[in-house]
Amino acid sequence: MTAAPEPPAFPPVQRTDWLRAPVGLALLPDGSVTTAPGFSAAGATAGLKPSGELDLGLLVADDPSVSALVDTRNALPSAPVVRNRSHPRSGFRAVVVNAGSANAATGSPGVGDAEQMAERTAAALGLAAGEVAVCSTGTIGDRLDMSRISGGIDEALRARSPDGGPEFGRAICTTDAAPKGGAFRLALGGRDITIGAAAKGAGMISPDMATMLAYITTDAGLSSAELQRLTAAAAEESFNRITVDGQMSPSDTVIVLANGAAGRLDRAQGQVFAAGLTAVMRWLAIQIVRDGEGAGHAVRLTVGGARDGAEAERVARQVANSPLVKTAVAGGDPNWGRVAQAIGQALAGDPGSPAEPEIAVDGLPADRAAEVMHRTEYDLTVTLSRGQAGAELWLSDLTHEYVSLNADYRT
Amino acid sequence: MTAAPEPPAFPPVQRTDWLRAPVGLALLPDGSVTTAPGFSAAGATAGLKPSGELDLGLLVADDPSVSALVDTRNALPSAPVVRNRSHPRSGFRAVVVNAGSANAATGSPGVGDAEQMAERTAAALGLAAGEVAVCSTGTIGDRLDMSRISGGIDEALRARSPDGGPEFGRAICTTDAAPKGGAFRLALGGRDITIGAAAKGAGMISPDMATMLAYITTDAGLSSAELQRLTAAAAEESFNRITVDGQMSPSDTVIVLANGAAGRLDRAQGQVFAAGLTAVMRWLAIQIVRDGEGAGHAVRLTVGGARDGAEAERVARQVANSPLVKTAVAGGDPNWGRVAQAIGQALAGDPGSPAEPEIAVDGLPADRAAEVMHRTEYDLTVTLSRGQAGAELWLSDLTHEYVSLNADYRT
Repeated sequence: MTAAPEPPAFPPVQRTDWLRAPVGLALLPDGSVTTAPGFSAAGATAGLKPSGELDLGLLVADDPSVSALVDTRNALPSAPVVRNRSHPRSGFRAVVVNAGSANAATGSPGVGDAEQMAERTAAALGLAAGEVAVCSTGTIGDRLDMSRISGGIDEALRARSPDGGPEFGRAICTTDAAPKGGAFRLALGGRDITIGAAAKGAGMISPDMATMLAYITTDAGLSSAELQRLTAAAAEESFNRITVDGQMSPSDTVIVLANGAAGRLDRAQGQVFAAGLTAVMRWLAIQIVRDGEGAGHAVRLTVGGARDGAEAERVARQVANSPLVKTAVAGGDPNWGRVAQAIGQALAGDPGSPAEPEIAVDGLPADRAAEVMHRTEYDLTVTLSRGQAGAELWLSDLTHEYVSLNADYRT
Repeated sequence: MTAAPEPPAFPPVQRTDWLRAPVGLALLPDGSVTTAPGFSAAGATAGLKPSGELDLGLLVADDPSVSALVDTRNALPSAPVVRNRSHPRSGFRAVVVNAGSANAATGSPGVGDAEQMAERTAAALGLAAGEVAVCSTGTIGDRLDMSRISGGIDEALRARSPDGGPEFGRAICTTDAAPKGGAFRLALGGRDITIGAAAKGAGMISPDMATMLAYITTDAGLSSAELQRLTAAAAEESFNRITVDGQMSPSDTVIVLANGAAGRLDRAQGQVFAAGLTAVMRWLAIQIVRDGEGAGHAVRLTVGGARDGAEAERVARQVANSPLVKTAVAGGDPNWGRVAQAIGQALAGDPGSPAEPEIAVDGLPADRAAEVMHRTEYDLTVTLSRGQAGAELWLSDLTHEYVSLNADYRT
């Protein structure tokens, strides 16, 4: 007899099963490499963070590549989001990001500033301005200090290297407790590819605005249309399935750059790549949920037995965004009445008289739930008896620290 | 020259203009009278509150009367709600209410307990069980202690009197900082009627479940159909326009009893009565928003310039329920970026590119807002430039005390 193989480890996420990683996906242990081969990165100090920490990140595909981009649905998007939309999302080869100031609610002058960030970066790299994507995160309502930004861009251009991923990851953080990123190897039947990943976004919404930004690099070879399709689908199954406080930022952006250095993927390899990309994005998304909370709970909510997908989604969102449920999670209190209340609200106006839902955590009912709810990560399962449809979401808790950061602060 | 008449005072609500009270509505100064003539009330001690305070309320129309009832839209309603729905909402002549245990999530045995409360009360009053409405508020998930309930009912039956309104008001409270109630005189062209009012509901959702209960008595004469129509309309303009944390309780109930002792209202008098009833319900509703919060802010949010009523409502709910907006209110922080973020979220997916909204508090822009935001009650006005439709909502803030009550507590 041989021992069962160890399941793959993807720290800091403990519940590896949540990622649904394909066989052959491995997190590289060397944190100094967080971008795929053929990419360079840097972090620089523009001087926008009062702390004096790294606050300007640069990520560059050294060779021709294709890109994909997914951004916020907020109807009042930030200036960089507006600016990026004026260029083809398939044609980005570099990204310049600043932290400290979100360049949001700054009107058309802000859009001009974003364009200027792209132009300065592009000129130095020998690219067209439309090949450089721009992101900003931090306080909103203020214009960028363009002289500091320019200095930071110049420093980043000088510093960029294949090993610059960790600095890039630090530079894009705002209230994140720690940078989130790493590089993964994915075995595709005899050929290995690399997926590099970096994200920012605090489970605890910052005093200013939660902005979720994620940057993925890979040497896989795909068409831009294919990459856009896989990126949108993976974001839907990861970043769009987390909720911290139900708020939609005007700046959220996910960018994937693929240079094809590892060769063109065939159809079967493309499917494994899609699963790997989704797992990597989930790995980042779950870290966003966990980050910044006092208690640091990440809970996967699975709703089953709904009449259709829309109903399952409505129930899941109502439960996951309920401040009563979120404070119960923070307090480790199996107060299933609050879950039932949220379900009843989601089904309000329904003519039928729904049965009481079944509720469990990690498979245990309320009377044994307390032993589960101190875990950092656990499953909350809600089963209705109305149909066959389901939905899943990851939620964080609502803590004193949330209120402190957001109320005991003045603009 | 004569001095302008003093505007009517409706303490504890300061912003009297929010009530839109008709001329001729006055709050009676004598708090010992909180029911209309021809009604009796009592508070008793059943022993359900650990504090030993009054916890069983009884309200009786001494003579034949008509009733109206509006209750929760939550699809998993409490046992008393289920039970009351099995009787005509026009035919109630008495109400029995307990605090301390909500009789919610108790299944059909709970419905039987509610029916038993009605039967015991009805038998002593010489009424049919269907003439007694039942409400319960408090912790959920536990069966009622029917022996204590019966004792409380007997004590209340012995104690009831025309002056028992204040005890009734105290008995229905759970985490309310203070009872909410009073009696109003409404001049209807040479004839005066009385509207008595009592409500419970804490701006700070209790560890258990926010339940909003309100009981109105009047000697006005209306048909039951008219009374139901006016009650539903008044509730829509009052209790349905407040939000504490966006959560819909399974127990919310508003009951109006009208005995007609002051005579039948003609059409014009009916219109004034409708305005008076709405003002009284708003007076109660605004107290619910204010009650229990650490900071105790009640903010009227007015959204204007929306394309249609549904859009105005969507924007208003998104802003009013945003934890980022609510913590900004708690902190007195004019962080209008958070308001804009919520507006953008409400309009998500809109193909147009909306202009930046105009935002003001008590008519002042962001740079002068701090002087307004320490007020207990103020107006927050959001003006879009998309159309002519509007909506208004009252919201409370999100404070440390909310998290303490809801997280630092174990079931």
